[in-house]
Amino acid sequence: MPLDPLTLTPLPGIPLIQPGDNLAAIIRVSLQEAEIALQDGDILVLAQKIVSKAEGRLVDLSTVYPSTKAMVYAAETEKDPRLIELILRESNEVLRARPGLIIVEHRLGFVCANAGIDHSNVRGEGGNPDDWVLLLPENPDASATALRTQLEAQAGTHLGLMIIDSHGRAWRNGTVGVCIGLSGLPGLEDLRGQKDLFDYELRVTEVGVADELAAAASLMMGQVAEGTPVVHVRGFPYPLREAELGELMRPKDKDMFR
Amino acid sequence: MPLDPLTLTPLPGIPLIQPGDNLAAIIRVSLQEAEIALQDGDILVLAQKIVSKAEGRLVDLSTVYPSTKAMVYAAETEKDPRLIELILRESNEVLRARPGLIIVEHRLGFVCANAGIDHSNVRGEGGNPDDWVLLLPENPDASATALRTQLEAQAGTHLGLMIIDSHGRAWRNGTVGVCIGLSGLPGLEDLRGQKDLFDYELRVTEVGVADELAAAASLMMGQVAEGTPVVHVRGFPYPLREAELGELMRPKDKDMFR
Repeated sequence: MPLDPLTLTPLPGIPLIQPGDNLAAIIRVSLQEAEIALQDGDILVLAQKIVSKAEGRLVDLSTVYPSTKAMVYAAETEKDPRLIELILRESNEVLRARPGLIIVEHRLGFVCANAGIDHSNVRGEGGNPDDWVLLLPENPDASATALRTQLEAQAGTHLGLMIIDSHGRAWRNGTVGVCIGLSGLPGLEDLRGQKDLFDYELRVTEVGVADELAAAASLMMGQVAEGTPVVHVRGFPYPLREAELGELMRPKDKDMFR
Repeated sequence: MPLDPLTLTPLPGIPLIQPGDNLAAIIRVSLQEAEIALQDGDILVLAQKIVSKAEGRLVDLSTVYPSTKAMVYAAETEKDPRLIELILRESNEVLRARPGLIIVEHRLGFVCANAGIDHSNVRGEGGNPDDWVLLLPENPDASATALRTQLEAQAGTHLGLMIIDSHGRAWRNGTVGVCIGLSGLPGLEDLRGQKDLFDYELRVTEVGVADELAAAASLMMGQVAEGTPVVHVRGFPYPLREAELGELMRPKDKDMFR
């Protein structure tokens, strides 16, 4: 008998997002165009960039005055001191700095390059158009919950919603999609205590299911421009539940690779 | 207009795999049961465990004599010295060793715990049934190519095939599925040179598309027993091409997090 598939469908026709745009309304229109009627258990995955833009997280670098610390890191990384200033403000600490590269622990707890601040596909109003950059959402879990609540109310269904970004990794080449905020779906599934075929206790315990789904959705978003920044997911194989990004964050004192 | 989805379907009825089993034949039967006719561009993703078992990569620990080095690491990690001996034989170097944990660079180039050697869901013939462990395939790229060639000949279609395992990560909790061998699909997609909306050169350059697909497939395999160790993929959004695992491996001298 065929088993249920996992289906990830990029939503069509999402326009360029501007500060103040109503993402829930935009997604509703796109779902209609995709001929998708939301069902209980469906999940929507959004690229960080459209959430940040809708929330007006654009900053004009010409308004930013770098601190002495920012000047030091700017020299070390050969980056714009004003950008470095924003990166430092968005970060708990700098892990590595080299020419062309700065890797930090973001204030939200994850490790990434440039504190997730993006320069491509970004233009604000006024000033030098090349000076605009985009910060991550202030609180992605809260953004996810707010959007999910609106979409659930529209559709009358129980949903999950996740915001993702692309991060580099230790040890392996290539970026992969990872969860940076979620609402209504598990971040981790704890398989401790489940027995294997021969009644051993399973030793591999926790699976990063939200990150696995983030990677899958990222595959369908591409990286060019903002073609398909929303992906609809049906068939996620774990029960939906409330969760916070924190469950995916390894505490610094338990991390052997800082 | 609706866009093409990515669909991941776990294949039903895959039996417990024994050394010498013909995986291509088993997959063919399961595809029929799933009512899936392979098409050009489809990808099959296999859990490492069934490939390793079919290839007879079972080892009876009672036949393994630990070296002095293995005894030292066994004391440090509080693990079975015979298991440590196998881990060392399968590894280029040990990155971290602590009670309950040993993280190595596997001889295949990736960083993982226990050199990917698995104890759960494993039983060999004879000896103490608890003494059997399972090594990774000798050469997963070659295994992937051999299987792919058989499946392509059966189906008369052009396919991709990938072997995956679950690895822990730096910085984030939870394991995720990653590629450990592939044939006929890209490991990385290089987006350098493609322009963004405003004609900036994209700075995020390489996407680990095989790992993104591995994570997606892992989600549909679960972790319990061997329920669904093969996942059929349709709608992978990049052209198929020849590739090797090496393209996903960051050279040690370019890795800042060893």
